[in-house]
Amino acid sequence: FASLPGVPREMEIITDEELIPYLQAHLVMPGHIKIHKLKTTGIFESALAEKIAPFIKLPEHVRLAYLPSFSGVDLRIIAPGGTKEAAEKSAGNAIKQLRELAGKYIYGENEDTLEGVVGKLLTERNQTVATAESCTAGLLAGKITDIPGSSNYFCQGVVTYSNQSKIDLLGVPKDIIEKHGAVSAETAEAMAAGIKEKADADYGVAVTGIAGPDGGTDEKPVGTVFIAVASSNGVVSAKHSFSKDRKSNRGRSVYAALEMLRRAILEIK
Amino acid sequence: FASLPGVPREMEIITDEELIPYLQAHLVMPGHIKIHKLKTTGIFESALAEKIAPFIKLPEHVRLAYLPSFSGVDLRIIAPGGTKEAAEKSAGNAIKQLRELAGKYIYGENEDTLEGVVGKLLTERNQTVATAESCTAGLLAGKITDIPGSSNYFCQGVVTYSNQSKIDLLGVPKDIIEKHGAVSAETAEAMAAGIKEKADADYGVAVTGIAGPDGGTDEKPVGTVFIAVASSNGVVSAKHSFSKDRKSNRGRSVYAALEMLRRAILEIK
Repeated sequence: FASLPGVPREMEIITDEELIPYLQAHLVMPGHIKIHKLKTTGIFESALAEKIAPFIKLPEHVRLAYLPSFSGVDLRIIAPGGTKEAAEKSAGNAIKQLRELAGKYIYGENEDTLEGVVGKLLTERNQTVATAESCTAGLLAGKITDIPGSSNYFCQGVVTYSNQSKIDLLGVPKDIIEKHGAVSAETAEAMAAGIKEKADADYGVAVTGIAGPDGGTDEKPVGTVFIAVASSNGVVSAKHSFSKDRKSNRGRSVYAALEMLRRAILEIK
Repeated sequence: FASLPGVPREMEIITDEELIPYLQAHLVMPGHIKIHKLKTTGIFESALAEKIAPFIKLPEHVRLAYLPSFSGVDLRIIAPGGTKEAAEKSAGNAIKQLRELAGKYIYGENEDTLEGVVGKLLTERNQTVATAESCTAGLLAGKITDIPGSSNYFCQGVVTYSNQSKIDLLGVPKDIIEKHGAVSAETAEAMAAGIKEKADADYGVAVTGIAGPDGGTDEKPVGTVFIAVASSNGVVSAKHSFSKDRKSNRGRSVYAALEMLRRAILEIK
């Protein structure tokens, strides 16, 4: 028996640092198992399965699971084998196929996080990012700076909730907001270009949308979010149609913005 | 038996909307129970217990529990009674005593959140708030805007991670940063006053600190956080010494800043 505390954080630390090493040292495993995760984002589970399931060829004993969460879909490979080498070879073969089938959507593996991967890319390239947020209101900046050492690549961000603050802090032209609305591709692009210039950063990322529960229209219902990234290659934007739920809309917007930044850095179309 | 889905969000909705009403309609309760929570923040569980435990007089059947979490300590009163009225009277008596003993720290009850309470206060007073964040990097703005309709009182925020952005976006005098450091009461106060003025808001809230894991010194170890609130009554600041954990430091800073804002609005010393 192992008794663990009920406080999640304490339980996790004790499990990782004490329980699992103890079990690994004391249990005799029947053969070997290689477990590996490939982490994807920016694609729904069903669309990802359509890309993968019909084409992948795995030995019968190797299992592939789709694990969807808020931030994306993890692909988990479980490859058993008589020896460590055999298990790793089976897993390696599966990983190779998955990378060929869904490589564009794979941002990392195992314990990688999207914000960590983006941070690593920026660090390697010695580049910086700045953010301009409306509906996510600081959550994107908060996520980027979850990573220790992010002050090396995150210089500044603004939360421009009001139209006036978009004009004052980002230099968004007033007539763009009047003509297209605060929630529009045009405003998102002007916000991204504005923060890139004001912060003198390599990348400017902007989010504007209708998080809900109110503020939706027939043309732009709750869950409509525009995300833009400005870089030395110009400004790109994308429209998303998320859900009716405020919390979910804000969370998904953060990950969609991070993924768009990752693609801009890697110049993935 | 009741089978519930494993996805937490789905489980919660079904539990709240289907399971609990079903149980309430089908179970016969032995007598009545009144459960009430008073929610506190800004004081540790042990200090709160010292204020309460020696002085409160409860009938033997009424139970009081301390429920600590990230955002504060909830006081849960469980008062059983033969009739609904008797249970409510016992609970009401306990609530009255708790309010007398710890009123300053009680921000709300039952389902109240600190960000919701602050939002309600600002709405009632038709006042606005703006934020300037360093170590929390947008999480405070993100928390304030968790509340639907927060655009009525949250105008804008800035995330000033670099010293230069504190100077450029907030007008923090360069010599204050040079003399006292970016993590200091003086810088926090200048940030709060700066954002209040730039945003033309009723309250400016600023957070600057060392979230960790690096960047600590003997004088200012990891977990040192300064929070300041600027209002028409001037600028106040407070120093906190949180933990060694980055995530916890950022989360606690957000709630400490919200609580300081609540006290500034209510003019609680």
